[in-house]
Amino acid sequence: MAATYQATERTVPTRSADRASYDHDLVHSILDESYICHLGFVRDGAPVVLPTLYARVGQRLYVHGSTGSRPLRGAKQDDGLAVCLTVTHVDGIVLARSAFHHSINYRSVVVHGTAYQVTDPAERAQALDAIVDHIVPGRAADSRRANAKELAATAVVSLDLDELSAKVRTGGPNDDPEDLALPHWAGVLPVSRTYGALVPSDDLDPAVPVPAYLA
Amino acid sequence: MAATYQATERTVPTRSADRASYDHDLVHSILDESYICHLGFVRDGAPVVLPTLYARVGQRLYVHGSTGSRPLRGAKQDDGLAVCLTVTHVDGIVLARSAFHHSINYRSVVVHGTAYQVTDPAERAQALDAIVDHIVPGRAADSRRANAKELAATAVVSLDLDELSAKVRTGGPNDDPEDLALPHWAGVLPVSRTYGALVPSDDLDPAVPVPAYLA
Repeated sequence: MAATYQATERTVPTRSADRASYDHDLVHSILDESYICHLGFVRDGAPVVLPTLYARVGQRLYVHGSTGSRPLRGAKQDDGLAVCLTVTHVDGIVLARSAFHHSINYRSVVVHGTAYQVTDPAERAQALDAIVDHIVPGRAADSRRANAKELAATAVVSLDLDELSAKVRTGGPNDDPEDLALPHWAGVLPVSRTYGALVPSDDLDPAVPVPAYLA
Repeated sequence: MAATYQATERTVPTRSADRASYDHDLVHSILDESYICHLGFVRDGAPVVLPTLYARVGQRLYVHGSTGSRPLRGAKQDDGLAVCLTVTHVDGIVLARSAFHHSINYRSVVVHGTAYQVTDPAERAQALDAIVDHIVPGRAADSRRANAKELAATAVVSLDLDELSAKVRTGGPNDDPEDLALPHWAGVLPVSRTYGALVPSDDLDPAVPVPAYLA
């Protein structure tokens, strides 16, 4: 049987519950396909949502940043920082005959939990490598690892994959039967994230080859 | 002189403040280029971040959803719902010689404020058109507008553009001088959102042409 996360009151959506999933493989595939998440936390009673890099290692997510940044300072407390970390892929624009049934094909994961500062040096090093490799697999080994000064300036926080859900919409528009004969085009405009031609740094020695993991 | 938003304590970033901007034109261009935001709110003391569609009309953003959805119910109260609405474009992956200086080229806008339910029928209609047209300009006029039953099931909330900041990173890696001779490739891998070939709905009458705004 496929491994699943346990649904909780806050991970069962109030809408389109049929699109929700708790399947480990699906959740991990959505998380592993991106490297930018939106991290939410509460500051002075108000929500704050910031884009940030992340990586998954097993059943744990890592986020890093300056030791001076607000959420990372908050995670330093013994009781951690309540966060919500959301990753979204836009896969298509769904054009229905009715404005009401317009939609987006997407895959998202919403993780609720408590972020804690990672202090163990080995776990910190693994997390920092994972964040670089999440962006470009193979890159961590082909870069200068952080030195002591850089490590001292970097906070790493962890968030366990425990209370979360994936939500996925696929397929075409769901127009009402009485709208099918309307003269409006209906279907899906696929959307994807694509990569352009590499732009070498101005100060790059032309003798340095493009590594295989970027070619 | 260019119009700018007034910076506040929470819109001045603790890091990379030189990347922050309050310029109306820049903020609007970032907001207008996308249609998916991440909306944060507080529920039972904990943050929640959900992806959702939005549109800008002048100095106001609109978000819509089912009248049963949690944040939209919250915005129904007289005192509204404290939210943070964030839009992020990923423009490139910045590969530095050092792991520490790896980065992302991005443009983001973070809006803080209070979301209120929109009850005026004319403003609701304008907002719903704007959300459809934000995804595909010209589409609202080429679809069946919402009927009374659909309108009754749809909540529209507004968020004024007042307390917010844009943040932008561009350009190549900022390696330290002592790292420039290291044998690692350095530069930028451009990233963009692209659109594929239209996929007509299975039930689309082949006589319905692809409209000019999609061609």
